[in-house]
Amino acid sequence: MITEAATVFFDAIELDCGVALAPVEVAYETYGTLNADKSNAILALHAFSGDAHAAGEGGWWANMIGPGLAFDTDRYFVICSNVLGGCKGTTGPASIDPKTGCPWAMGFPSISIADMVRLQKMLIDRLGIARLLAVTGGSMGGMQALEWAVTHPESVAAAIPIATTARHSAQQIAFNEVGRQAIMADPDWNEGNYYGGRGPARGLAVARMIGHITYMSDESMRRKFGRRLHAPDQFEVESYLQYRGSKFVDRFDANSYIYITRAMDSFDLTEHGSLVSLFEGAKTRFLVISFTSDWLYPSYQSQEIVSALRRRNCDVAYCNLTSHYGHDAFLVEVNEQTELIRGFLKSTQHA
Amino acid sequence: MITEAATVFFDAIELDCGVALAPVEVAYETYGTLNADKSNAILALHAFSGDAHAAGEGGWWANMIGPGLAFDTDRYFVICSNVLGGCKGTTGPASIDPKTGCPWAMGFPSISIADMVRLQKMLIDRLGIARLLAVTGGSMGGMQALEWAVTHPESVAAAIPIATTARHSAQQIAFNEVGRQAIMADPDWNEGNYYGGRGPARGLAVARMIGHITYMSDESMRRKFGRRLHAPDQFEVESYLQYRGSKFVDRFDANSYIYITRAMDSFDLTEHGSLVSLFEGAKTRFLVISFTSDWLYPSYQSQEIVSALRRRNCDVAYCNLTSHYGHDAFLVEVNEQTELIRGFLKSTQHA
Repeated sequence: MITEAATVFFDAIELDCGVALAPVEVAYETYGTLNADKSNAILALHAFSGDAHAAGEGGWWANMIGPGLAFDTDRYFVICSNVLGGCKGTTGPASIDPKTGCPWAMGFPSISIADMVRLQKMLIDRLGIARLLAVTGGSMGGMQALEWAVTHPESVAAAIPIATTARHSAQQIAFNEVGRQAIMADPDWNEGNYYGGRGPARGLAVARMIGHITYMSDESMRRKFGRRLHAPDQFEVESYLQYRGSKFVDRFDANSYIYITRAMDSFDLTEHGSLVSLFEGAKTRFLVISFTSDWLYPSYQSQEIVSALRRRNCDVAYCNLTSHYGHDAFLVEVNEQTELIRGFLKSTQHA
Repeated sequence: MITEAATVFFDAIELDCGVALAPVEVAYETYGTLNADKSNAILALHAFSGDAHAAGEGGWWANMIGPGLAFDTDRYFVICSNVLGGCKGTTGPASIDPKTGCPWAMGFPSISIADMVRLQKMLIDRLGIARLLAVTGGSMGGMQALEWAVTHPESVAAAIPIATTARHSAQQIAFNEVGRQAIMADPDWNEGNYYGGRGPARGLAVARMIGHITYMSDESMRRKFGRRLHAPDQFEVESYLQYRGSKFVDRFDANSYIYITRAMDSFDLTEHGSLVSLFEGAKTRFLVISFTSDWLYPSYQSQEIVSALRRRNCDVAYCNLTSHYGHDAFLVEVNEQTELIRGFLKSTQHA
């Protein structure tokens, strides 16, 4: 698989909040080869804690992007970039504010899912690609896919939003808010000014532990841990959560956690009218996927999207896949997703 | 309603962990009048963060215990005591260890649901009651009701476990563990030695916020908060959770949080065999109640109990009440619970 990792720079980006953020850099990777008429490009959009490294060793979707896989890099040119506000090479709160020479920290402007997509569009333009064959992603990646389809319908032949929603529910906001509160309760957070110091490791670990519970299902936790003990006074599920929490601290920036979860919470495609009116005249084809045991992004949220698309006579396929993996299913349930996506992409290419 | 609040003292209690805790005091309240043959006593068992104040102004089950209510104090004598390990009058980690003259803190011995019941049995004996008409409670109160029925079948005519389980699942343990980690991540927790100081207010508030999310359902949060804003940059659900978290700190001890949640997590009636074998020869009548939208103590957990009782030909009635209130339903769904419980208690009295 031909893989490239690179960073592009832009002078500035106009954000939804009215601020022009300058300068901006975007870390991205590409897999496969762009064909001569630039018609085989697929943009993969990562979830909350993901990054540009989607395929190959350690990639977050390594089982889905590659030669012969769902997103077949022998046929398609797959692009993945770290989101705006992130901490893996794209400008975020840990980046240097040129006006002060110090990290932005909580002085970073507030960002939205639409801002993330705006920056991705600038990247795609820079790469000389006028129209993407597909945009796809799970969870927050699915929100970006929906935003792409709504904002740039002419630039997207197909959208594959997975395990996602058109707007966060009160419960989804609540879980994110508890994570943010856990970070901000840590005195080492220091109002976000911890760069160069130790940072809110304990708070961030607690936030991540909450996240992990919501990514799994009651059943998948029972299958994986049950009531097995790790030590005389410790259940396996406890040591697992503690381990995952502590590992997360090494790879993620707490302020990015705050900014990105706020972007997710404020995302609401129905803000200016119904979902149905939003999809008016949409020419993009849709494949919507949800999972039966996903209680963080329940199937009914995907079904709201599907139902709005159908009312507009849009070309939409929907599959509620049976899985016990909960929200994690979009990263784990490879076989059925592969079948669905492979067929859908082929028919899109020949449409 | 005749109400009494009192405290009883015992020299010591032998705990499951092998330690004899000495001395022990128990705060309790009673409502109504014990009849001449002492056959109308009902023990109400509180949930995790409850206390002995069950009925009357501000009581946690004020809508269920009182004249003419489900637990009709014109007919029954209702007793409620604060659990062992608690912080509302019964001995717990904040109590003074007579050997040191200082609070026990994390030196308090580990406690179990069976220990809580053991202390309640001592209280009931002290009150001169040989046999309870009923034991009842929701959530952790339901665990105690089950433990009573299993350990003292001769002393319990009827048990009404509500929204509860015979053992915590990995997911239930996980949520409790994140709460404990949030407390212990707070430097003001100081390994539990915070008495006289400020205490881990931020960590305890975060723990409580997590709890509140699990007590509600996706639907009840949507109905109560939706995506409504409290301030330009704050959703109502965020300010609600922050408020509830901060209020909790004023009324609950962080070390009690740790000890009591550990007791819940370690509770497992199937530890020494199947539920079915446990109920062998049970003469206690059962009314088991669960709620459709309770995802913290899902209905299938109640159904496991019911199914084990039915296999032993025990006298068991079961109702899975339709409610959108989630786990909170046992505190909120008054009408249907009242109908069920009133009829069940009458038939128990005349059995």
